[in-house]
Amino acid sequence: VCIAVPGDPFIATTHVALREEARKLKVGEEIVFGVSAYTSAISLSGLHVYKFGKSASIPLTDDINQVRQSYYTLLENQSRGLHTLFFLDTKDGGLRAGKALELLLKVENEEGRGVVRSGTLVIVVARIGYDDATITAGRLENLINHTLPPPPHMLIFPGELHFTEKEVIKFYALNADDVERHAPVNYIRDRVLKYVEKTRRVLQEVRGQDVGEEFCNYVEAYVDDSKNFLTSGDYVNSLLAIGYAEGLLDALRLLGVVRFEW
Amino acid sequence: VCIAVPGDPFIATTHVALREEARKLKVGEEIVFGVSAYTSAISLSGLHVYKFGKSASIPLTDDINQVRQSYYTLLENQSRGLHTLFFLDTKDGGLRAGKALELLLKVENEEGRGVVRSGTLVIVVARIGYDDATITAGRLENLINHTLPPPPHMLIFPGELHFTEKEVIKFYALNADDVERHAPVNYIRDRVLKYVEKTRRVLQEVRGQDVGEEFCNYVEAYVDDSKNFLTSGDYVNSLLAIGYAEGLLDALRLLGVVRFEW
Repeated sequence: VCIAVPGDPFIATTHVALREEARKLKVGEEIVFGVSAYTSAISLSGLHVYKFGKSASIPLTDDINQVRQSYYTLLENQSRGLHTLFFLDTKDGGLRAGKALELLLKVENEEGRGVVRSGTLVIVVARIGYDDATITAGRLENLINHTLPPPPHMLIFPGELHFTEKEVIKFYALNADDVERHAPVNYIRDRVLKYVEKTRRVLQEVRGQDVGEEFCNYVEAYVDDSKNFLTSGDYVNSLLAIGYAEGLLDALRLLGVVRFEW
Repeated sequence: VCIAVPGDPFIATTHVALREEARKLKVGEEIVFGVSAYTSAISLSGLHVYKFGKSASIPLTDDINQVRQSYYTLLENQSRGLHTLFFLDTKDGGLRAGKALELLLKVENEEGRGVVRSGTLVIVVARIGYDDATITAGRLENLINHTLPPPPHMLIFPGELHFTEKEVIKFYALNADDVERHAPVNYIRDRVLKYVEKTRRVLQEVRGQDVGEEFCNYVEAYVDDSKNFLTSGDYVNSLLAIGYAEGLLDALRLLGVVRFEW
């Protein structure tokens, strides 16, 4: 018996289950690996494979609760500078890229983290593996109504781009400038930087009030640490340090020792 | 002109550059995608492709500084429950899996985050795509000296495993119990939990000392928040909240209002 399937045979769990069944029944099996849409899309995009974070899928739905988790996968990957590949639903004619982008925008409207918005650079891969495959890159708002061959479609949200990656994307971009201007949103970094700035401002207000210089210097050391950890990519210690510094200052305020507003 | 390469043509950047060159010279080109070791290894392992985080590579070297970044990729993926695929160097006869595991252990000895150690479940894929390909799973210490066909080798460190994934791994594991007992180290979660516990203990010591109940309840609310954010997978707010709670308590200690030791 030979079972031929499109793409890689075990990327979908159905076929893994079949192999398991065969093994349990002591039926011999031989595997011939196939070309996967996963690596083909990455390959066609010109993005570096080792810079992709966790991938995610977007179902054919009007219920954005089913898309929320994928939105957060994107947020986490972007915070690490990584690229994100979305598999779009292939059932019932398939989910179109434009519709998938609209779903992500709706989640953005509720969650408000700023990772999906006008100006966000997106890559749309249509019909990978077919003769009429296309790849297009552009600003999200220009791709929502862009004419594409029918599904299957896939989406790639680039993270931080190496200049060799930018060069390749420009070949299929609607506008080379959109690629050059690409600035992925780093939610964690941006949030820490906002807190660092706020804490520094408050610290300045507090110095000179009824609190020792030693205490202020102690707080400042943690603010500096937070910034340094952030620069070295150590988000865990960066978040802990800035939270700690804010707590130190807020205790003074709560005890009535100093006055300030965040 | 036809250029045939092993694996997927553009996973390595050399060939992307070739295509770019052809396009610049207005030379027509057609791409036939290939079978990538990346998806084949994932496919053979039976792990779910969408649960893989960023992949990384390990060079043929004795300088563990060149392996440190890959170690932290593993740590980050594990903290999200994700699987990690390591491409091992193929130059000069190739890096053997056992040697790669030793390199990671050396980094662990310096960094001490606990993600690579005796008992860690590892999957070794050897010669994927060749007729004599093998896949083996087992405890790290049992795989270091395990006999394998020559390189190319790849390593997979599983994150959290679905029971269907466990079933597949057991087919090629040295010992089914090792798969059943697999408990990936979640560095971020473990660290927050340690701080939550410590802060709760200190809070108990502080209550009854010269500080209002309102202040203590305020701190406690943030400790609870941290735990809840952790449970929902929101590490950013969890880390900020526990850092903040520690800062609140430490300010009291520094001002001499209360006495305790962390």
